[in-house]
Amino acid sequence: MILRTHLGECRWQETALHAYKQEGSSFQDVTRQILFESSAMAFQWRYFEVAPGGYSTLERHEHEHAVLVARGAGRVLLGHTVYPIQLYDLVQVSAWTWHQFQPTGAEPLGFFCIVNSQRDRPQLPNAADLETLRQSPEAATFIRI
Amino acid sequence: MILRTHLGECRWQETALHAYKQEGSSFQDVTRQILFESSAMAFQWRYFEVAPGGYSTLERHEHEHAVLVARGAGRVLLGHTVYPIQLYDLVQVSAWTWHQFQPTGAEPLGFFCIVNSQRDRPQLPNAADLETLRQSPEAATFIRI
Repeated sequence: MILRTHLGECRWQETALHAYKQEGSSFQDVTRQILFESSAMAFQWRYFEVAPGGYSTLERHEHEHAVLVARGAGRVLLGHTVYPIQLYDLVQVSAWTWHQFQPTGAEPLGFFCIVNSQRDRPQLPNAADLETLRQSPEAATFIRI
Repeated sequence: MILRTHLGECRWQETALHAYKQEGSSFQDVTRQILFESSAMAFQWRYFEVAPGGYSTLERHEHEHAVLVARGAGRVLLGHTVYPIQLYDLVQVSAWTWHQFQPTGAEPLGFFCIVNSQRDRPQLPNAADLETLRQSPEAATFIRI
């Protein structure tokens, strides 16, 4: 379909809603929709939504993320720092940067996340990585595993 | 900058506002902001805004557009058909499809448009193309050159 209507609350016509699933990873209350992918596009445009109290997987990878907040508000861990994020804020997740998204308040946190079609698989933190991350007090308080 | 705050009305921190410019093309009251581009990204994420009464260039090209309406409402020509579009609607502009965006009402029409970093240059309609397009009554009424 060349035109897919927004049905409200970040659901779209003819667009499947998936529970976010990633082998071996830890996450809570996250859904995923693929908004655009095509053999002619070198990228994939996804929409992720984290329910109140939930969190995205704490991970890092070589490929970069281009993120725009599409619903609600929250906080994002980037490396050892936690930043507040609001509607339409832009987040660039650079290569090999640990990151995790969490909503604040009673609304879900939704964001568009665009990545290269061809990309490496995310890496999860091992015990040593977590110890290093937790040397930052704000990261230690923020991280959910 | 890894985090760029939304300043309101689709302006962003540290993000330049350009008058849309394309050699030989016809457009009116269109601005462009590049939200993401990077040597590690195979795509470019742009935001275009068309002021009330304005219109984007009528063009076609081999590369595909992934579009999401980010502000206001409008209409889009895709091939020979005109579709109404509203906030968060998704538009996929396929290869070699003539397209033009116009706002409706008193609000600007803003949209995210993601493309491959490596792409061909847009083609403008010649007299024969316009004649063919105008065989569709709705296209004939819609088109602004």
